[in-house]
Amino acid sequence: MAYNLLKGKRGIITGALNENSIAWKVAEKAHEEGAAFVLTNAPVAMRMGEMNALAEKTNSQIIPADATSVEDLTDLFTKSQEVLGGKIDFVLHSIGMSVNMRKTIPYAESNYEYFLKGVDISALSFHKMLSVAKKLDAISEWGSVVALTYMAAQRTYPFYTDMADIKAMLESIARSFGYHYGIEKKVRINTVSQSPTKTTAGTGIKGFSDFFDYADAMSPLGNADAESCADYCITLFSDLTRMVTMQNLFHDGGYSSTGVSTEIMHKFGLK
Amino acid sequence: MAYNLLKGKRGIITGALNENSIAWKVAEKAHEEGAAFVLTNAPVAMRMGEMNALAEKTNSQIIPADATSVEDLTDLFTKSQEVLGGKIDFVLHSIGMSVNMRKTIPYAESNYEYFLKGVDISALSFHKMLSVAKKLDAISEWGSVVALTYMAAQRTYPFYTDMADIKAMLESIARSFGYHYGIEKKVRINTVSQSPTKTTAGTGIKGFSDFFDYADAMSPLGNADAESCADYCITLFSDLTRMVTMQNLFHDGGYSSTGVSTEIMHKFGLK
Amino acid sequence: MAYNLLKGKRGIITGALNENSIAWKVAEKAHEEGAAFVLTNAPVAMRMGEMNALAEKTNSQIIPADATSVEDLTDLFTKSQEVLGGKIDFVLHSIGMSVNMRKTIPYAESNYEYFLKGVDISALSFHKMLSVAKKLDAISEWGSVVALTYMAAQRTYPFYTDMADIKAMLESIARSFGYHYGIEKKVRINTVSQSPTKTTAGTGIKGFSDFFDYADAMSPLGNADAESCADYCITLFSDLTRMVTMQNLFHDGGYSSTGVSTEIMHKFGLK
Amino acid sequence: MAYNLLKGKRGIITGALNENSIAWKVAEKAHEEGAAFVLTNAPVAMRMGEMNALAEKTNSQIIPADATSVEDLTDLFTKSQEVLGGKIDFVLHSIGMSVNMRKTIPYAESNYEYFLKGVDISALSFHKMLSVAKKLDAISEWGSVVALTYMAAQRTYPFYTDMADIKAMLESIARSFGYHYGIEKKVRINTVSQSPTKTTAGTGIKGFSDFFDYADAMSPLGNADAESCADYCITLFSDLTRMVTMQNLFHDGGYSSTGVSTEIMHKFGLK
Repeated sequence: MAYNLLKGKRGIITGALNENSIAWKVAEKAHEEGAAFVLTNAPVAMRMGEMNALAEKTNSQIIPADATSVEDLTDLFTKSQEVLGGKIDFVLHSIGMSVNMRKTIPYAESNYEYFLKGVDISALSFHKMLSVAKKLDAISEWGSVVALTYMAAQRTYPFYTDMADIKAMLESIARSFGYHYGIEKKVRINTVSQSPTKTTAGTGIKGFSDFFDYADAMSPLGNADAESCADYCITLFSDLTRMVTMQNLFHDGGYSSTGVSTEIMHKFGLK
Repeated sequence: MAYNLLKGKRGIITGALNENSIAWKVAEKAHEEGAAFVLTNAPVAMRMGEMNALAEKTNSQIIPADATSVEDLTDLFTKSQEVLGGKIDFVLHSIGMSVNMRKTIPYAESNYEYFLKGVDISALSFHKMLSVAKKLDAISEWGSVVALTYMAAQRTYPFYTDMADIKAMLESIARSFGYHYGIEKKVRINTVSQSPTKTTAGTGIKGFSDFFDYADAMSPLGNADAESCADYCITLFSDLTRMVTMQNLFHDGGYSSTGVSTEIMHKFGLK
Repeated sequence: MAYNLLKGKRGIITGALNENSIAWKVAEKAHEEGAAFVLTNAPVAMRMGEMNALAEKTNSQIIPADATSVEDLTDLFTKSQEVLGGKIDFVLHSIGMSVNMRKTIPYAESNYEYFLKGVDISALSFHKMLSVAKKLDAISEWGSVVALTYMAAQRTYPFYTDMADIKAMLESIARSFGYHYGIEKKVRINTVSQSPTKTTAGTGIKGFSDFFDYADAMSPLGNADAESCADYCITLFSDLTRMVTMQNLFHDGGYSSTGVSTEIMHKFGLK
Repeated sequence: MAYNLLKGKRGIITGALNENSIAWKVAEKAHEEGAAFVLTNAPVAMRMGEMNALAEKTNSQIIPADATSVEDLTDLFTKSQEVLGGKIDFVLHSIGMSVNMRKTIPYAESNYEYFLKGVDISALSFHKMLSVAKKLDAISEWGSVVALTYMAAQRTYPFYTDMADIKAMLESIARSFGYHYGIEKKVRINTVSQSPTKTTAGTGIKGFSDFFDYADAMSPLGNADAESCADYCITLFSDLTRMVTMQNLFHDGGYSSTGVSTEIMHKFGLK
């Protein structure tokens, strides 16, 4: 069911790798809700992905961009405004990669070159997007920017290695930039802290998919899936949430506020 | 602009005293968004209020109920289902009163009879509503319940006296009950922590209205007003936020994540 | 090993029921560290307890007081100053009781009379102690007050029922009163959020002792025990923590910042 | 007054630039409390500093080390153990530098090379120290590591620019590493979030010293100074806080839990 919540709005959506991606669902929903948008991804990710089908389905253009490159991002925001015919109303940042995690390097032995690469790709890319957008004055007043994050930024999950620290920085960038962009242009910036999700990125993390069932049993409403996350992002892009900014918003079926569930206790053989 | 976000939904809205009330705006918006609902307030508050005009405008019935009375609340949920023709999809709790605050009794000298009365009216009323609803199985699966709160639950504001402690309890009740009701019936329960707002209740607090301008200067987007709060509540009542539960959600223009703003620094004579 | 950290300090210690009590360990440690103090408990709890042995061992007097009675508390603070020969330097609040929990009444069906009784005993008693102390000017400048709490104030534990909401209020009272007493007399007030502990109170909670092992496996350092909690309280009573106030301090072996531990994952049959 | 709290303990203290440094005060206090330790700083910082006087006063050796160099840190931990005659019991990380802040580059225009340099110096240096220590098994069981941080990691302060995001990462590293080092060797790791302090580093931040008075007026106990911070660190290095780990601990006179103070309201001409 659609509501025209984003009617007439223009967006940029990153990270739609395939139909399991949260960004993919966001694109589908945004399209249903009346938005026009540009899809983007790193050239290398695009080769693996199936974005063309999504672009066709949602009547969108694809503009490849390396999110660590200020030049590429400048190009992205400039062209997106041309293609869409005006300033950008919403942006989804769904970009994350840790080489240390991929290579299953234990956290205490993190390689620092990889660590800094993770920072650059997964956190500074967000700063760069916002910096470029602000310099170009490319986002409309009351525009809305959302970045996806994970609760490892608050509590340690052994399998999440250096990505935890990087997500903590990402969430801080949302607050810091939310302050500056908010004051100047009323642009609001939030992060959505999502349940473990069976995306290609998620299932690629050793232990993360194992953890999926645990989190599901811990969450009063179960894990939130990619589709419901997309629904939530739509509300954050809409005009109905204009005064929400600089927040980290848990979208997790209640997991974050649950100390332990009866179901988990039972699985441990407890009453 | 309306989206039919609550089309076909049935609700109960408490606390609409007059057109400055957040609850009043929620009623107006919910009506625009296609919901049918019952308005309720304490009999004593109703005499002061102008709810009839709102009821007429939104085509709603008024069912008076003392929110501290389990009997009244049972009556409210029973009749509301009859009037609306089915289970309740959303509930707004906007009920708060501190005798200690009203009488401007200094916090350290709080009267404990008043304190417990404040607990009963402002916090336990929320538990009672949920308890009655659960017993009657009066809320639909995936129904959404929102209670309004204030950030004094996290940080001390001298003028907010015992209401701070009571709001902390209210927010905890949302988490506790959100767990139980979530597991059993997928009902989600959240609190919205709103900017200082120029409602009758708000302006009645000594120092609170004075504080209004300070908070406004501290918030990158300025204070959120009653109308935008209503918009936000609508999204929380909608089907697009189904996996958000047991959260305290700041709706405050970024105030909660701002340590200090340049504007405040300037007002303080600083660079 | 003792350090004379509390040499010359005068205190009031509540809640030392028997040698498993955290308060009991605090009394032992405070004695070792050179403090003189009064032990107190509700008359009814004293009959069950073995406080006389503790009083003898620590060379302390016992002054019974019902912590819900302003009169008893006035008496307690007045006599304590007489007995100890001066103003009070530290206070331990270790008082909690929920009738709903004792009777294992499900949270959603809480009895409200019991709930309010729990509020009065477990949270307002703290306010009353501080209010009485402030009125009598019974606490020294830079005096330190600690109340024991549990993390259920932040996250839901099904077995903790209404005590969760009451502890949330207790923690808020620490902040609120910490502000007022801090400004006026430099008295600092904190809560210590302790691991599940095998005290008489703790093991009396259905499911709580079951939960003990789970929490232990989740905590990188294991559960903190009563003795280490007492050590921690000593540091908070000492002059070395003078600028720490209005904080909720987790003393839990890292539990609060752990999303999941490898040990828990293994117990769950995961890698 | 000294208590022998660190009698027989061996430590490493970074960041003692001059007598205004928090690390300087920590060294003085640690010496008074019976610890033996090594002082260290970057070679470049040492040229500006007066560490020799401190070394003499505290009977310590200085081992220069660039905290971004794994090689230097390996040397530091190896030699420190030799010099001190055993494993290290406590470590103070007081290292922070942002080129963007120094050059007063507006946050939105941050230079990314500088940003990554800030990450490396101020956050990864902490990871590197811990990683080296763990690899060398250089820290005793129940050893204690503290890093100094600032509340900008939670709330935005315009003048703190990219250091806010970097401190958020630092605090996350404390949690992440605290988990791993805790499980393996019972080493506990915390951050202390200190009031604005009149150190050379602090006063060098544009706007930070201006902010000092504001924070002081906001804090019920006033700003915590360097000396009291050192006292607090001593308690965290002691055996009395063994079960505190993975925490961010506010040492700020109550600032973090104060929404607004009466004094601030008055300065704004409010009642």
